[in-house]
Amino acid sequence: MRGGTIRDLGEDLLLLRIKSVIDSPSPGVVGIGDDAALLGRQLLTTDTLVENVHFRRAWCTPEELGWKALAVNLSDVAAMGGTPRAALVSLILPAETSVSVVMGLYRGMQRLARTTGVAILGGNLAKGSPLSITLTVTGESEAPVLRTGARPGDRIFVSGQLGLARAGYLILKRKLTGTKDAWAEPRATFLRRRNEAANAYPGGLKAVRRFLLPDPRLDLGRDVHATAMMDVSDGLATDLPRLAQASGVGMVIDTEMLPVSRTFRALCDALKVAPEAVMLEGGEDYELVMTVSPSAEVPDAVAWHCIGEVTSGHKVLVRDKGRTRPLASRSFDHFKS
Amino acid sequence: MRGGTIRDLGEDLLLLRIKSVIDSPSPGVVGIGDDAALLGRQLLTTDTLVENVHFRRAWCTPEELGWKALAVNLSDVAAMGGTPRAALVSLILPAETSVSVVMGLYRGMQRLARTTGVAILGGNLAKGSPLSITLTVTGESEAPVLRTGARPGDRIFVSGQLGLARAGYLILKRKLTGTKDAWAEPRATFLRRRNEAANAYPGGLKAVRRFLLPDPRLDLGRDVHATAMMDVSDGLATDLPRLAQASGVGMVIDTEMLPVSRTFRALCDALKVAPEAVMLEGGEDYELVMTVSPSAEVPDAVAWHCIGEVTSGHKVLVRDKGRTRPLASRSFDHFKS
Repeated sequence: MRGGTIRDLGEDLLLLRIKSVIDSPSPGVVGIGDDAALLGRQLLTTDTLVENVHFRRAWCTPEELGWKALAVNLSDVAAMGGTPRAALVSLILPAETSVSVVMGLYRGMQRLARTTGVAILGGNLAKGSPLSITLTVTGESEAPVLRTGARPGDRIFVSGQLGLARAGYLILKRKLTGTKDAWAEPRATFLRRRNEAANAYPGGLKAVRRFLLPDPRLDLGRDVHATAMMDVSDGLATDLPRLAQASGVGMVIDTEMLPVSRTFRALCDALKVAPEAVMLEGGEDYELVMTVSPSAEVPDAVAWHCIGEVTSGHKVLVRDKGRTRPLASRSFDHFKS
Repeated sequence: MRGGTIRDLGEDLLLLRIKSVIDSPSPGVVGIGDDAALLGRQLLTTDTLVENVHFRRAWCTPEELGWKALAVNLSDVAAMGGTPRAALVSLILPAETSVSVVMGLYRGMQRLARTTGVAILGGNLAKGSPLSITLTVTGESEAPVLRTGARPGDRIFVSGQLGLARAGYLILKRKLTGTKDAWAEPRATFLRRRNEAANAYPGGLKAVRRFLLPDPRLDLGRDVHATAMMDVSDGLATDLPRLAQASGVGMVIDTEMLPVSRTFRALCDALKVAPEAVMLEGGEDYELVMTVSPSAEVPDAVAWHCIGEVTSGHKVLVRDKGRTRPLASRSFDHFKS
């Protein structure tokens, strides 16, 4: 036996181990540990979607999958306050994949690429199974916002309705699990079936859409005066401690300050889940979380919601109905889940 | 049934279909169809190694695999006459992967990165099976060499001993197939076993090394005055027609001009394979092939070997013992093989 497995170690500790074997970046270069790597003003980021780990054929069309594969990468660019420029696509495809599926993937990517000014520059096709999509996006930022700049006294803001993607995921999991390969089914039949499932819940269609077609917050990210920022991809309970640790600070947030729309509460009621838990633990919203100095302008209140503040020390706490507890208790880990 | 599979269509036709759905690149941008994408002077390239498709645990150490994953990308940069700067690493890892395997992969990458001036800037870790490694490399080129500039009358040159990697592959396939997972075996035991297998053939160790640890021709690529260039990754019989097609020309090469060292001939004899067939059809050498204008300086005869010339028309032919035949007869295709 040669040491433990990565499941035992977990993702964050594995990253620390990896950091110890690769050379430290030169000045002006940001390597492991932020949403994107930074070479001067050039941003570089990569993210992968693997079949049956990150997506299911029973839940989405190839077009939606292509969109999402690009969106999750653009979200990393947004989290650095950057502007994306170009994408390379690496596909691992089973040889029996139908050509129309591949075309659908590219059509979905192209749709989002066009609205965000991204050029798809090709990439690589490899045979293999299961299907996976790795995109690498390059971009630039005049004033990149890292994870490292939060200071005690800063306020913490999130964009949008956290938890919406998780609610969409729950709907699909409850209603579409075990159903057949949607990619072999006529498109219209599948979409009718999925819409019916979603519409069984108030606001269900919007939640499903958020889960399948995340909207990278590029405009929001570019427009901030933040001391630190990241995107919320694994859920606030996992990501906020990462932000705090990168900055060497503590944080305290308040569940009563988390934004809960009336429709989101109704949807959570119908799903029989607690909105606060879904907002804290649900991933894949691809919203942004940032810290803002008390002396800076208050960000736009329509887009941003203050949920707490940065503290000294290293603890990340949540105040929930008068009681304070550590936030990271049920942390998500890619290799442990 | 919604159209054919990618196995039926094949890689080159699939790329044409993909090209038809994505937006054409702006001026100064090179997208699909060359070794790397080009954004002004910035190069971007990506390549993937998938377990049991591109590598086997029975044949290589994690360190060697990490080296190769970077090398195949650097070869694409070399093929554009470029200098690599940074790499992002996307790993898909089964949760039961041992931490020491991941460390080995990064150590192998780091070793080659250091000698080639490449910064490893992190990337992404995803859970999934089988293990795959996608690297994206960025770099730059003052005077990029594309695939499109070959003109009738140009001479065709290749670097190094083509076919050596294929000979190494044949040794491993004959001697190490069916053996146990080398990553679970003590390193020294495995290497002793592999060396013995390779040393059963004259020059076998060098051939196995070329297959497992390709040496990207960065210095050669930067130093040329070529009209067109690419790397030989799928074998000359597959890659040369791609170069000809990109330039809209024909080519004729002569098997008697292919460089065959005495040790390579002895190795092929021991393997009972024809050296010419191995040189034309064997992939993974990661040598360079280029075309040079008759008015340009003759390239260094130690590094480069003239194997034929560019013709008008569109046929790619090989003269073999006085007879002329099309080169692409037994073309390699990732999805058909």
